[in-house]
Amino acid sequence: MTMDPTSFAPEHFGWAFSEGVATVTLNRPERKNPLTFESYAELRDTFRDLVYTPQVKAVVVTGAGGNFSSGGDVHEIIGPLTEMAMPELLAFTRMTGDLVKAMRACPQPIVAAIDGICVGAGAIMAMASDLRLATPAAKTAFLFTRVGLAGCDMGACAILPRIIGQGRASDLLYTGRMMSADEGERWGFHNRLVPAESLLDEALALARSIAAGPTFAHGITKTQLNVEWAVSVETAIEMEAQAQAICMATKDFRRAFEAFADKRTPAFEGD
Amino acid sequence: MTMDPTSFAPEHFGWAFSEGVATVTLNRPERKNPLTFESYAELRDTFRDLVYTPQVKAVVVTGAGGNFSSGGDVHEIIGPLTEMAMPELLAFTRMTGDLVKAMRACPQPIVAAIDGICVGAGAIMAMASDLRLATPAAKTAFLFTRVGLAGCDMGACAILPRIIGQGRASDLLYTGRMMSADEGERWGFHNRLVPAESLLDEALALARSIAAGPTFAHGITKTQLNVEWAVSVETAIEMEAQAQAICMATKDFRRAFEAFADKRTPAFEGD
Amino acid sequence: MTMDPTSFAPEHFGWAFSEGVATVTLNRPERKNPLTFESYAELRDTFRDLVYTPQVKAVVVTGAGGNFSSGGDVHEIIGPLTEMAMPELLAFTRMTGDLVKAMRACPQPIVAAIDGICVGAGAIMAMASDLRLATPAAKTAFLFTRVGLAGCDMGACAILPRIIGQGRASDLLYTGRMMSADEGERWGFHNRLVPAESLLDEALALARSIAAGPTFAHGITKTQLNVEWAVSVETAIEMEAQAQAICMATKDFRRAFEAFADKRTPAFEGD
Repeated sequence: MTMDPTSFAPEHFGWAFSEGVATVTLNRPERKNPLTFESYAELRDTFRDLVYTPQVKAVVVTGAGGNFSSGGDVHEIIGPLTEMAMPELLAFTRMTGDLVKAMRACPQPIVAAIDGICVGAGAIMAMASDLRLATPAAKTAFLFTRVGLAGCDMGACAILPRIIGQGRASDLLYTGRMMSADEGERWGFHNRLVPAESLLDEALALARSIAAGPTFAHGITKTQLNVEWAVSVETAIEMEAQAQAICMATKDFRRAFEAFADKRTPAFEGD
Repeated sequence: MTMDPTSFAPEHFGWAFSEGVATVTLNRPERKNPLTFESYAELRDTFRDLVYTPQVKAVVVTGAGGNFSSGGDVHEIIGPLTEMAMPELLAFTRMTGDLVKAMRACPQPIVAAIDGICVGAGAIMAMASDLRLATPAAKTAFLFTRVGLAGCDMGACAILPRIIGQGRASDLLYTGRMMSADEGERWGFHNRLVPAESLLDEALALARSIAAGPTFAHGITKTQLNVEWAVSVETAIEMEAQAQAICMATKDFRRAFEAFADKRTPAFEGD
Repeated sequence: MTMDPTSFAPEHFGWAFSEGVATVTLNRPERKNPLTFESYAELRDTFRDLVYTPQVKAVVVTGAGGNFSSGGDVHEIIGPLTEMAMPELLAFTRMTGDLVKAMRACPQPIVAAIDGICVGAGAIMAMASDLRLATPAAKTAFLFTRVGLAGCDMGACAILPRIIGQGRASDLLYTGRMMSADEGERWGFHNRLVPAESLLDEALALARSIAAGPTFAHGITKTQLNVEWAVSVETAIEMEAQAQAICMATKDFRRAFEAFADKRTPAFEGD
């Protein structure tokens, strides 16, 4: 459903909206911003609503108080899960998976701004974002194995190898070990490391620069980055021929050409 | 159709042929070697013809005058595109996609030799090559977003993530920013950086060493690198069992064994 | 079929079993541990049997005498192959492919411990492992092209690009050149470099730490790392929702939660 980003007031996370950029802040800093059944569901619904909210042109996801997220809360999530029957378990894992699906399906590029602890479902939310900025203190772990589970959580066995390669993903998923910020940058998980004091500013600047671009076309880029994973090279090229032809029929394409001819910077409008 | 590589004289790019290696030179250096409707089509036809031209055993693609390519010419391509109806737009994007398909489908490994500017469709031609040597001054950008388009051009959303990973590809495709030569080497886009003065020599040496190998088998390697993208591990292994069994029936395989037994270097003939 | 890991005594390679970790040692050090028709077959059968051998919780694969493996023996394998008819050739390439399939299909994570020469089918066995530790002297080459064959051997054109990227894999597969240990670490092939004198200890320690984890869940992680290669993001996420729900129904999941609540380290039992 459609939402009004200027008045939207979620219950379970922080929300800000400015210059086309929505900022989602996981904000239970005293617990390092864990996820709960309620916050999973509200995040899922919010990213689903963004499909129908063109005013939002890019999203920043971050955490309050020097950490990104400690993941699924042990007492509020893991404890109850150990009591559930299979239909409830599957309903839960499908709900968390639906959050990742919603983050990949919304047309807005998502920039994760990561400081401190980024583990479990928090690491997954970072992974499911399009771009990742981190501080030197960021510590990321897919620690599902530490709680007796498999590494295949919310798409990790498919998505993480495509970001950092199959060997490094296997290391993180079998051992649950911490990936340092430096490793994350070397391996292509983090796009860039920035000082903690400028993390949010840098993430917002990056998101704003994307929001100032041809946002309809960005949405198509995001779609294609998703849907071309499991098709042949030839199929991918035909898909892109069609997708790019659609973009060539937009006004933003004409705006760019006219700006170029006039030697000025184009002002994109997303249509 | 078949071509004679010793007499081939394309209209829209340079061509040389020596020791089994064809060199394609984008050569409008005063404009940093842009592509035009005509050069796209002639390049596509040339790579298609290479399927039937076994004398050509490897290809070098480079640019004249210190740059690789500035991509689709703004005045000769982008301007006209803004005037076209959808059927013409799709015909254009399919033609450019057909160039990438032809580069991937010809059996000859392609070595891109990249100096200076390598942007837009130029960056795509580098990406669609098998190997990439670059100078420290190489600047590569998938800048489609800068002209109001999506990053999904000519296969980029499928091919680029497989070369440099999904996170780094997302950065380049959403922002259109320049990838430096050092980044390209760190990220696995460039196989090696070499000084500008030896770039072409190094690329030719690499291409000649490949051309001196078992070229029928190289063509099979290239085929398998293409066709195994979207199949299961088990299917890929069965495909390779069949493909390698074919290569074991070649004379080049026997030549290698006999040379080994005689303690000499094998002289491969590509059959 | 089931095997007894404490009494298993293979004919063509070394075997040890301790603390849940089986160690496979390629052990013809005077020839740098080549593979033969017999050792391929026995390795294939052994990894197949591991599916039914839950006492083995992780595997280390290594080589005796300072080298990993010189690959298919030139005299014992390549010579005979040059005399074979096509049905025999395909039977051979399918057998070697079956070794990789068996390594990927057994539920135990496999840690390769690599020193010195690691080439041909030896490089493939390293590639087919889940994790790779190497010494600074490790030299890895997919040198099939050197013997007149294609790079597509035993899954290399599908698996290697997913570990190190398409561009670097193309370099190794077309040229057959040696990848140094440092390159292997930079590129994500080797997870870590360790001194030769501690290589086996480090590999065993890593394998033991994995064996001490939730091994049923590890097996699911391995399955998902295999089966999610060629499916859409959405399909992968649904597959993981189901796979993780299975793991949430295990006793190990409850053990982890109870240990957490009691502030002690969980003792996983693999069920």
